[in-house]
Amino acid sequence: MVDFFPSASRFGDADKPREECGVFGIIGCETAASHTALGLHALQHRGQEAVGIVTTDGDRFFAERALGLVGDTFADSTVLARLKGSAAIGHVRYATTGETILRNVQPLFAELAFGGFAIAHNGNLTNALKLRQQLIDNGSLFQATTDTEVIIHLMARAQNASTVVERLIAALKQVTGAYSLICLTKDSVIGVRDPAGVRPLVLGRLDGKPVLASETCGLDIIGATLERDISPGELIVLHTDGRVESFFPFDAVASRFCVFEYIYFARPDSDLNEKSVYAVRRRIGMELAHEAGINADVVIPVPDSGVPAAIGYAQAANLPFELGIIRNHYVGRTFIEPTDQIRHLGVKLKHNPNRAELKDKRVILVDDSIVRGTTSVKIVDMVRQAGAKEVHLRIASPPTINPCFYGIDTPSKEKLLASNHTLEEMRKYIGVDSLAFLSVDGLYRAVGEAKRNKEMPQYCDACFTGDYPLPLVDMTPEQKGKKRKALLHC
Amino acid sequence: MVDFFPSASRFGDADKPREECGVFGIIGCETAASHTALGLHALQHRGQEAVGIVTTDGDRFFAERALGLVGDTFADSTVLARLKGSAAIGHVRYATTGETILRNVQPLFAELAFGGFAIAHNGNLTNALKLRQQLIDNGSLFQATTDTEVIIHLMARAQNASTVVERLIAALKQVTGAYSLICLTKDSVIGVRDPAGVRPLVLGRLDGKPVLASETCGLDIIGATLERDISPGELIVLHTDGRVESFFPFDAVASRFCVFEYIYFARPDSDLNEKSVYAVRRRIGMELAHEAGINADVVIPVPDSGVPAAIGYAQAANLPFELGIIRNHYVGRTFIEPTDQIRHLGVKLKHNPNRAELKDKRVILVDDSIVRGTTSVKIVDMVRQAGAKEVHLRIASPPTINPCFYGIDTPSKEKLLASNHTLEEMRKYIGVDSLAFLSVDGLYRAVGEAKRNKEMPQYCDACFTGDYPLPLVDMTPEQKGKKRKALLHC
Amino acid sequence: MVDFFPSASRFGDADKPREECGVFGIIGCETAASHTALGLHALQHRGQEAVGIVTTDGDRFFAERALGLVGDTFADSTVLARLKGSAAIGHVRYATTGETILRNVQPLFAELAFGGFAIAHNGNLTNALKLRQQLIDNGSLFQATTDTEVIIHLMARAQNASTVVERLIAALKQVTGAYSLICLTKDSVIGVRDPAGVRPLVLGRLDGKPVLASETCGLDIIGATLERDISPGELIVLHTDGRVESFFPFDAVASRFCVFEYIYFARPDSDLNEKSVYAVRRRIGMELAHEAGINADVVIPVPDSGVPAAIGYAQAANLPFELGIIRNHYVGRTFIEPTDQIRHLGVKLKHNPNRAELKDKRVILVDDSIVRGTTSVKIVDMVRQAGAKEVHLRIASPPTINPCFYGIDTPSKEKLLASNHTLEEMRKYIGVDSLAFLSVDGLYRAVGEAKRNKEMPQYCDACFTGDYPLPLVDMTPEQKGKKRKALLHC
Amino acid sequence: MVDFFPSASRFGDADKPREECGVFGIIGCETAASHTALGLHALQHRGQEAVGIVTTDGDRFFAERALGLVGDTFADSTVLARLKGSAAIGHVRYATTGETILRNVQPLFAELAFGGFAIAHNGNLTNALKLRQQLIDNGSLFQATTDTEVIIHLMARAQNASTVVERLIAALKQVTGAYSLICLTKDSVIGVRDPAGVRPLVLGRLDGKPVLASETCGLDIIGATLERDISPGELIVLHTDGRVESFFPFDAVASRFCVFEYIYFARPDSDLNEKSVYAVRRRIGMELAHEAGINADVVIPVPDSGVPAAIGYAQAANLPFELGIIRNHYVGRTFIEPTDQIRHLGVKLKHNPNRAELKDKRVILVDDSIVRGTTSVKIVDMVRQAGAKEVHLRIASPPTINPCFYGIDTPSKEKLLASNHTLEEMRKYIGVDSLAFLSVDGLYRAVGEAKRNKEMPQYCDACFTGDYPLPLVDMTPEQKGKKRKALLHC
Repeated sequence: MVDFFPSASRFGDADKPREECGVFGIIGCETAASHTALGLHALQHRGQEAVGIVTTDGDRFFAERALGLVGDTFADSTVLARLKGSAAIGHVRYATTGETILRNVQPLFAELAFGGFAIAHNGNLTNALKLRQQLIDNGSLFQATTDTEVIIHLMARAQNASTVVERLIAALKQVTGAYSLICLTKDSVIGVRDPAGVRPLVLGRLDGKPVLASETCGLDIIGATLERDISPGELIVLHTDGRVESFFPFDAVASRFCVFEYIYFARPDSDLNEKSVYAVRRRIGMELAHEAGINADVVIPVPDSGVPAAIGYAQAANLPFELGIIRNHYVGRTFIEPTDQIRHLGVKLKHNPNRAELKDKRVILVDDSIVRGTTSVKIVDMVRQAGAKEVHLRIASPPTINPCFYGIDTPSKEKLLASNHTLEEMRKYIGVDSLAFLSVDGLYRAVGEAKRNKEMPQYCDACFTGDYPLPLVDMTPEQKGKKRKALLHC
Repeated sequence: MVDFFPSASRFGDADKPREECGVFGIIGCETAASHTALGLHALQHRGQEAVGIVTTDGDRFFAERALGLVGDTFADSTVLARLKGSAAIGHVRYATTGETILRNVQPLFAELAFGGFAIAHNGNLTNALKLRQQLIDNGSLFQATTDTEVIIHLMARAQNASTVVERLIAALKQVTGAYSLICLTKDSVIGVRDPAGVRPLVLGRLDGKPVLASETCGLDIIGATLERDISPGELIVLHTDGRVESFFPFDAVASRFCVFEYIYFARPDSDLNEKSVYAVRRRIGMELAHEAGINADVVIPVPDSGVPAAIGYAQAANLPFELGIIRNHYVGRTFIEPTDQIRHLGVKLKHNPNRAELKDKRVILVDDSIVRGTTSVKIVDMVRQAGAKEVHLRIASPPTINPCFYGIDTPSKEKLLASNHTLEEMRKYIGVDSLAFLSVDGLYRAVGEAKRNKEMPQYCDACFTGDYPLPLVDMTPEQKGKKRKALLHC
Repeated sequence: MVDFFPSASRFGDADKPREECGVFGIIGCETAASHTALGLHALQHRGQEAVGIVTTDGDRFFAERALGLVGDTFADSTVLARLKGSAAIGHVRYATTGETILRNVQPLFAELAFGGFAIAHNGNLTNALKLRQQLIDNGSLFQATTDTEVIIHLMARAQNASTVVERLIAALKQVTGAYSLICLTKDSVIGVRDPAGVRPLVLGRLDGKPVLASETCGLDIIGATLERDISPGELIVLHTDGRVESFFPFDAVASRFCVFEYIYFARPDSDLNEKSVYAVRRRIGMELAHEAGINADVVIPVPDSGVPAAIGYAQAANLPFELGIIRNHYVGRTFIEPTDQIRHLGVKLKHNPNRAELKDKRVILVDDSIVRGTTSVKIVDMVRQAGAKEVHLRIASPPTINPCFYGIDTPSKEKLLASNHTLEEMRKYIGVDSLAFLSVDGLYRAVGEAKRNKEMPQYCDACFTGDYPLPLVDMTPEQKGKKRKALLHC
Repeated sequence: MVDFFPSASRFGDADKPREECGVFGIIGCETAASHTALGLHALQHRGQEAVGIVTTDGDRFFAERALGLVGDTFADSTVLARLKGSAAIGHVRYATTGETILRNVQPLFAELAFGGFAIAHNGNLTNALKLRQQLIDNGSLFQATTDTEVIIHLMARAQNASTVVERLIAALKQVTGAYSLICLTKDSVIGVRDPAGVRPLVLGRLDGKPVLASETCGLDIIGATLERDISPGELIVLHTDGRVESFFPFDAVASRFCVFEYIYFARPDSDLNEKSVYAVRRRIGMELAHEAGINADVVIPVPDSGVPAAIGYAQAANLPFELGIIRNHYVGRTFIEPTDQIRHLGVKLKHNPNRAELKDKRVILVDDSIVRGTTSVKIVDMVRQAGAKEVHLRIASPPTINPCFYGIDTPSKEKLLASNHTLEEMRKYIGVDSLAFLSVDGLYRAVGEAKRNKEMPQYCDACFTGDYPLPLVDMTPEQKGKKRKALLHC
């Protein structure tokens, strides 16, 4: 799908499941801040609205946070020069708004009894509201409005714990939900992945020193080599001398990695769980061609996210693949459409039909997912106005019928098109000659499984199936969109 | 080719022929400024460093100029609201530097004896230095350092002319070189294309009112329909009521449209001279496959400019097309590489190998052109380190051996790799298993000619052939890079 | 004395006891934010480096904080428009530096269990460091580095208290030191003055609604009438309907108002404790003339702070009063002196000799105090170079020999000129023909007392006498300048 | 008088004749830019809205221009570092508004046939509009809207002249009006004062190198010694080696220095024509006491400009001088008064009554001049509300009844209170018990003349007498305020 009305976000597509966050950490590296900036630049697709880096020289801590892209602030060597020290962690996130803006930009930092502590979080805690109220009742003062701050307060109160790692474990044992964390103390970088391993986190090496990143593309950009994925439930402590300690402090639960990372979130050149994201997407396109093939002249992707699946579809269907829609990557700040006359042009800000490839053609259009469906309507209309004879829409994922509570910003159930409409209703609404989604089992085949294991699904696929693997304490799917949401997550 | 060291330009590729400029104009439209901003946004690929819009309400003129992308400044409705009036022209340009920055951002504006006059210019005047000195000797005061300012001074001195159009014609009859101009007076928008028609300029209609743009993609974004290309040597006057007057005030010469617009400059979804740019590029890839086919496993484009030719190559060669290199479009300000350790990572800021598609493969790499060749070396190295077994580089244009003097910022002859090296020397320098360029006749076939007409070439191809169709008064190819360049062009 | 090297502060005189802070509050006023901005503008002399305003509409709270002068930020009606509501408090403070800048700008704000709470503080808590450590040991997380934050954490922990006023009292009973506080809750403005009443705080009325300000000039600017000084140890609650409740929750102690407010800090047009500051200063000048008269031609003030005392001196001595030194009030940002050649010109940035009034004259120079003495040296040198025949320096206060711990930023004991030198040593160092300070009893006479009551001094005069009325828990005078200062105060 | 409504200008008093401009130049000095910044800082009272400096290293020219105070921009050593070279000129000016802002900030710079040339101007050309139209008719292109630009165009056209000095003389021979100019060429600084010497210009020496400034306070701040005033009609060329050439290229006319410089414009510590400004103002106060003495308790100045005259008045009348009105010098940006409630407080932004010195007193209030009179009304009302028993207003100049055309921004005739009202009408309007102005002869006595020479007045006093010494080509006093004013002057 496509960003017809990009008012909410500079780069994010409004009708997409909005991105979550990206985290990065490095230790024992003289240019820790620069490498962190580059790592975050590679992870920019995971959050375009705010970025922060905290470093330490083993004594003092240095922090810089800003709204906007990594390159807007951290391409400046004078900014990087202020970030002294050989250990650094960083964070990119999607929109924070209003007065809360600066206080919520991560990494969060606090002076704890044992010294300075910074934390960067990708995911969402499902009992943060409840814990927050308990802490306030006991005299804790909250500064920001993110779920992540709960972890720091729990650490400050964990007075029986004798080390920072023990305090962190004590705090995390009280939270539920999804998290990949990277933390900074004065002499270590700590990584943690929640017991179900919902969000990704990988360990790499650069000149013998350990590096953590949300995805492998964050390692590639600095020339680091991938060592391994952090395991679900693993807590890892990186030391300046390159030593890495591994702990498994939590009760073991079944692994439930987010399957949507493969479909849309992750960069195609990343490997997640030793699988190439690009290859999975191409296989998705192939499965789609097998499940929902149709006679046509050309396969056209909705750029950029639909490209790998469209290539796979074209190869499986033995049809020509062409760039029938051209994406304008120059954006700057969001255009504000001042008049109705301009507003209806919205879709054109990012996409333009390549008429010569559409006119009089029977077109198979491949997109990754449908959320609200509003943008699909406009893309299809644009393709039709360019002269396409037939338009067949193929979606590279199953119908999205449930909101996410584990780190992805999705609309409430009633706003999800597939949650309230039949396939035929959707086809008519979008205005295509045919519409097909990938099946759930087709998706599992594309990621290399024989099929979905119903007793113990191999992935978190709650958005497609409603099967939520982790407890929902603060809010139920029914409350989503009705209850006033109190905390930002990441 | 690829931007390994993007220090000079935010988006521009340092080892590319740098882009020129884009122009846009509209009249009789209540949202003239907004539409101009959108038109320039669609033309952003023609110049990313500065942007300006001038409007008129028939009495006063309003101007806003800024460095950066269109969307950085003109997405703001308060800025647009200051640009009152129903006629507007705009301009995007590549880098201007130093103190001259603001004075050189176009459109230029002057109060002439007949009233306000604004001018936006794409191209390069080849006798501007000489004219400028004559004007200074006669008491004219220059404010900026662009060639375009010469035109305004010549108009101010054209005291025999009784109308603004006559003054403009009198001025243009004194200049040589390439130009597509859009000008604004208090009651008209004027477009002019030089007699050889080197640079593009198209006329469209929106709700009956005329629109001018460098390329058709500038019409598409606002929903305007293409009426026709402005002819070489044509001067066209657009009126508020939609009336269009056409003049041919110059002596006729043979048309010599810039062939490089098809190869690299124009957007693939534009039509130039009624030819689809995308289709020309795909045919170029097909010609290249026929001229220089080789056994391989996969065809990989250097994104984004190499993609259409790679698709064409893959189709003609019946090989799989895959995204083996992923481009990161998030840029922000240019990263300044502070240390050697970071500097060698430069290429990674924009491109990352998609290892799964390269490892153990025989790769055909398709790029649009080679200028200095420095970046090709790094892209190829990146592909090899990702595990490619063989790398065969195919260039979608003939060898670039001469600088341009008609509106494109190219390095001097001695810096052009192909100007000083044999094919085998280039192959070794870049480090590929084989290297091939498209032939000049292959290029002409791709644009639909049987072959290049040596007596009267159908296009300006001076960069490939050294055959300069327009007089070079201020500077010869040999002086380029030695003579201190006095004027910016666009 | 005079600011020869204004490097630390835009307006503050580096060789002065640096100013402390100013506070303002108003309730029941539709233009609460505008009036607060004006009140702070009138209190600008109490702090030029940062300013903040917090308002409430009875439900939400609105905050704006900035570095610089009140007028730099709050003259802008769009900023004021964001500060909704009919109750507001504000704060001006002297320099905060480094990364702590934004977090330390007051009013501080916190969401407490009973709702939002903002606090603005003039003074210094003398046991804040000790309390802070205890709170951290119990799991409180501190965000800023001001002593004021301790009060909020103590309130958050005061879980036995049932109202916000009870919580505030419970917190204040644990602190020692000097404070005039203005706090904001969703339905009240609260003012408190410490039991000894070291810092000023006055109550006024505007159209029947109560107003609080550090000095009466803060009332004058908005047209409010002075009702009375808040009493030492009084806590006062202002309600929207104009009602004012008064409490005396602390054990009574003897009143010890800061006598330096009369000498230098307060504005001359303010009344403190029903005494005109201007009149006190003129009487100081008169006492000085009686105690240390000398034959001369003219009395010259060091502007601006020496002017009232010089007028009094001239009247008592029956000598002409002339502006022999002209002060340049245009400042902008501090000039950074790049070279030695420029640096020695430093004194001239603010002061220029008025030669015609100095040349060949016997000059009595009147200044308010001597701290380090470095600037006196330069002022005197300037006056001598302008041709003065004799220079007699008269200081409108006793010798400053001790640092302040109650809200004024003074250097440590070893940096105070009078602490380590005899009168004759000082005279030689400064280079004057004669030097005299006001006596302590002369100072008490000027404020209307017969003399200083040694058993129970009527004022806090610790800087002159070493008699500190309030306990010094965190730091002794001997530790000042040696112990790393942990907290900012105001 | 006083700035009740400071909406137009940050520091300027709206009901004052607005200030003109200040100029500075230095050559042969390694820190030319820094010294120029300091000199302009000392001349800041002559223009607070914009500032510019141009320097040369003998080859290239460097320029920095900014809105705001000198210290806002030029206190920054990185800005100064960009201003390379040992020769510099600078300019401060009052408000420029709208889009013209940046183009009109002086010094103006142009590349002329003989090389770069910068010009800074204090004064006003009275035939600039006429000359400008002639130049436009002949093909000159104007960039700014100041009268000064005419001089540069005339120089560009002076093709018979062989040197830059000859070109400048040729240009100046065509203009009428008042000007003190400082110009910069690549190897000299040139100073010129118009034949009547309306505006001041002084020559000083620093370490043997020549310095030019509008007033002597501009010399004092950098430690330069006054050498002499530039004579009316003198053109002076300063060389790097310290050599000074003097020319008198114009026909001699009678000297007519602006007497208002003594009354209000110049700084009190400056000497103009070897007279101390402060001493003249004190004598004005003395003359005023003799001419218009009255029984009273205290003499109160309207600060700051009324202070020296009030001191003189008090001395002559043997009455106490007291600061009965306190001025707040902290300003920042202008406060915008959003509501009526706030607007009527306007006067309080800068002035507050010192009640103890006004209550129950018979007050003689001394101000320098009355322009519109609106602010006098408010000051007097403020003094009365503070309890003054009687208020007697004494004005330290004759009634202002005519606008200035020689460099001072005054309102048109119908807006000048004294132009349309009798003394008694004015007394009632302002609301004082008595009102008196200084007589014209009293003013001449204060500046050291026996009386005004009616045949050949010693000063330009057109604002008081209507006797305009220089031709008014572009506009007559009657046209002022009606004709659309085309050019800014300085």
